[in-house]
Amino acid sequence: MYNTVNQDILDELEGIVGKENMLVDQEEMIDYSHDEFSLSDISKFPEVVIKSGTAEEIAEILKLANRENVPVTPRGGASGLCGGCVPSFGGILLSLEKMNRVLEVDIANQMAVVEAGVRLMDFYEAVEETGLFFPPHPGEESAMVGGVIATNAGGARAVKYGVIRNYIRGLEVVLPSGKIIQPGGKLMKTSTGYNLVNLFIGSEGTLGVITKAIIQLMPAPEVMRSLIIPYDNLEKAIETVPYLIHRKILPLAVEFVPREVIEITAKFLRKQWPVSVGETFLLIIIDAASEDELDKMSEIIAEFCMEKEALDVFVADNPKKQEQVLEIRSKVYEAIKAYTLEILDIVVPRAEIAHHVKRVHEVSEDLQIWLPTFGHAADGNVHTHIMKARYENGTIIPLPEEEWKDKLAKVREELYRDCRMRGGKISGEHGIGIIKKPYLSYVLSEEEISLMRGIKDHFDPNRILNPGKIFD
Amino acid sequence: MYNTVNQDILDELEGIVGKENMLVDQEEMIDYSHDEFSLSDISKFPEVVIKSGTAEEIAEILKLANRENVPVTPRGGASGLCGGCVPSFGGILLSLEKMNRVLEVDIANQMAVVEAGVRLMDFYEAVEETGLFFPPHPGEESAMVGGVIATNAGGARAVKYGVIRNYIRGLEVVLPSGKIIQPGGKLMKTSTGYNLVNLFIGSEGTLGVITKAIIQLMPAPEVMRSLIIPYDNLEKAIETVPYLIHRKILPLAVEFVPREVIEITAKFLRKQWPVSVGETFLLIIIDAASEDELDKMSEIIAEFCMEKEALDVFVADNPKKQEQVLEIRSKVYEAIKAYTLEILDIVVPRAEIAHHVKRVHEVSEDLQIWLPTFGHAADGNVHTHIMKARYENGTIIPLPEEEWKDKLAKVREELYRDCRMRGGKISGEHGIGIIKKPYLSYVLSEEEISLMRGIKDHFDPNRILNPGKIFD
Repeated sequence: MYNTVNQDILDELEGIVGKENMLVDQEEMIDYSHDEFSLSDISKFPEVVIKSGTAEEIAEILKLANRENVPVTPRGGASGLCGGCVPSFGGILLSLEKMNRVLEVDIANQMAVVEAGVRLMDFYEAVEETGLFFPPHPGEESAMVGGVIATNAGGARAVKYGVIRNYIRGLEVVLPSGKIIQPGGKLMKTSTGYNLVNLFIGSEGTLGVITKAIIQLMPAPEVMRSLIIPYDNLEKAIETVPYLIHRKILPLAVEFVPREVIEITAKFLRKQWPVSVGETFLLIIIDAASEDELDKMSEIIAEFCMEKEALDVFVADNPKKQEQVLEIRSKVYEAIKAYTLEILDIVVPRAEIAHHVKRVHEVSEDLQIWLPTFGHAADGNVHTHIMKARYENGTIIPLPEEEWKDKLAKVREELYRDCRMRGGKISGEHGIGIIKKPYLSYVLSEEEISLMRGIKDHFDPNRILNPGKIFD
Repeated sequence: MYNTVNQDILDELEGIVGKENMLVDQEEMIDYSHDEFSLSDISKFPEVVIKSGTAEEIAEILKLANRENVPVTPRGGASGLCGGCVPSFGGILLSLEKMNRVLEVDIANQMAVVEAGVRLMDFYEAVEETGLFFPPHPGEESAMVGGVIATNAGGARAVKYGVIRNYIRGLEVVLPSGKIIQPGGKLMKTSTGYNLVNLFIGSEGTLGVITKAIIQLMPAPEVMRSLIIPYDNLEKAIETVPYLIHRKILPLAVEFVPREVIEITAKFLRKQWPVSVGETFLLIIIDAASEDELDKMSEIIAEFCMEKEALDVFVADNPKKQEQVLEIRSKVYEAIKAYTLEILDIVVPRAEIAHHVKRVHEVSEDLQIWLPTFGHAADGNVHTHIMKARYENGTIIPLPEEEWKDKLAKVREELYRDCRMRGGKISGEHGIGIIKKPYLSYVLSEEEISLMRGIKDHFDPNRILNPGKIFD
């Protein structure tokens, strides 16, 4: 289907980027053969890794790849969970890691201009130095801006501040043809032709290589506070959310986490979770212009949650308590990662969360598989973890492959079916990649997929860019 | 190029929608031959007006149009300013006016489901009844939801709350093929394939007929307040904005208006503008959770503006004053409409507004044409009015055609050139339609336009849907 990267091609690539920006040795390429998905059966080695420094170099590479019929897979921080940056057909792995400059934080225009290879942690730092604020917060700060855009990453703050899409105002993209375009600009609005910027956002590197982004910033909130609300069941917890909105409380984030996951994480971190009661917790983060306002909001939330059968309200009202709570919440993934087969990313209408999680529990029971489930209660994004271990009396017990292997596909099928029934989608913020591809037709119509394919064909007629992903 | 709508086609249309939902009489069709653009040279009568009631009917109509090679132009409230809903090639005018139901305001999910023909005023009312809030506010409330989505309308509140795009979570769209798709859902997030919803938003009815939308709502702000800040020149006024953001003040809206326009409007309405000093005004609207907070914000704004050479700060701190100020601001368009040839919709990076407006004044001087200019100071959207009158000593004096006819194209050219130089686009919130089509290549590259054309070809291979618009 594709040609292999022969010596002539390697020589030509060397002419474009220089030998120092190429890897061909298997051992050196191992990191580039996978992302954070747990199973190695989707891993694939590229034939060559290229660390390109400019859009112009990338344009040359894509022209060459088109001419020689060699696939190109762009790669950012590789913190993805569904194989989106795995070079499924070998070929050229195009790493953006060297394009790591924050080019500008333009205060007057409230915009940052960054290269695609900037890591989120570095971007946050550069923005904070200027006193401005980049609201979205996908969990993994080692992610690179280009990848975050390519997957339309979300994070816990979407309920108040929206997802990445809402902040991307302009892009530089190298098209598969080798042409470079710069749709959008430092513009808060535009209605000038079809919105190409929004088409590239979430297209998982299949329509063009994002090399630069113009990102809108916001004024930073003055103060933040975390509240932990224990409940004896999830349904009551979830029901609280729309009522808060109705009382004009718009939290930065509302997370739900079951006690077992919190306990595992606290143990992992050797920290203490400050709330002793409750089987499930809402973690509500609020921001405001003043402590007074936070006090008022906290009071309304507390009053309201207690009315709705919350068991208690714990307020992390000083930085130390706040940090402790947020650290435990943010390390939940890490704490169980070694035993996690796959993290689902189902999104459903918010009012359906409790019903969906109930189904998760049923499937867990039926298939006898541990499925800890938590996520973003206010935006409907549920991260069910499919585990290769069981949890008994406070202990994680790893299981041999034969005990989970056949169950993986069954869990996916059951939960994606439930997701479809509730008007949901199979990815809220991670993307489709390789892993979710077989389930795309559960939630998209044939006609929708056919429109997507047509767009792909027009942008990349020889299908050289990130083949084997989404619907391909 | 296209076939005419013959009697056989009329009969078939009658079979689909019934005679009572068709107009063929010229006199009855006159309203459907134009939008709000002032000159009649872009007007065109359709051959038949169809008032369809369901997506299924529209699907039948589009299949018929495809088979018979007859153009179809979808039409909402027709409050557009650049001919986007004018049936340039005759054919079928598809009015959405009968699809005017707010189907649901789903409080638990914070989403509304509406038909495309719902007028904004009715939508606001339905939403407000539930205590929720739809933040974007395009000026013209007679606009219909479908049209507002098709143009990605903006309005003054974009600086804090973003444009229409940020709130549209799902659509029902009838494709030119007659297939009906429902991309998105009641979902606050999704990364499940290319984002078709965002492709239809702003595509001006050229890719599909939007028949339904799922719209995210927000909690309503408790209180609002308006401040009028007079300055002796626009540059100082504009410079204020980024500093406010930096002081963590994010207003709902920041408008700039020159005194002459305010005076004309006040006279038109027989009202009094409450501020006597200043040549140009910033109108800052803030919202918050409490009057206390508004007081604090007002104080910071006032202090800061005075530092930056504002001449005074007028606070409309009671509903009556507030209403008076907002009424004058909102009627500015109406007050000068009879003398307006065209309203430009240029958007530039915010920090470029003052420079761009300076260029507007130069062009006005050079070409001896009256160009009152005002707009959204915080989001860079500048509405220069090209006038067919002059303004002298407080009086508007209409001019004969020969005095403005040749100047119209020159003004456009000069200002679009200036827009391009500043990294702007020719439409911030109105769309391209017919009027701005010749200038699209000023701000989009050949390659960008070619990508758009390819998308159009894939969605509408026979080019039956709203031909002659954007780039066609």
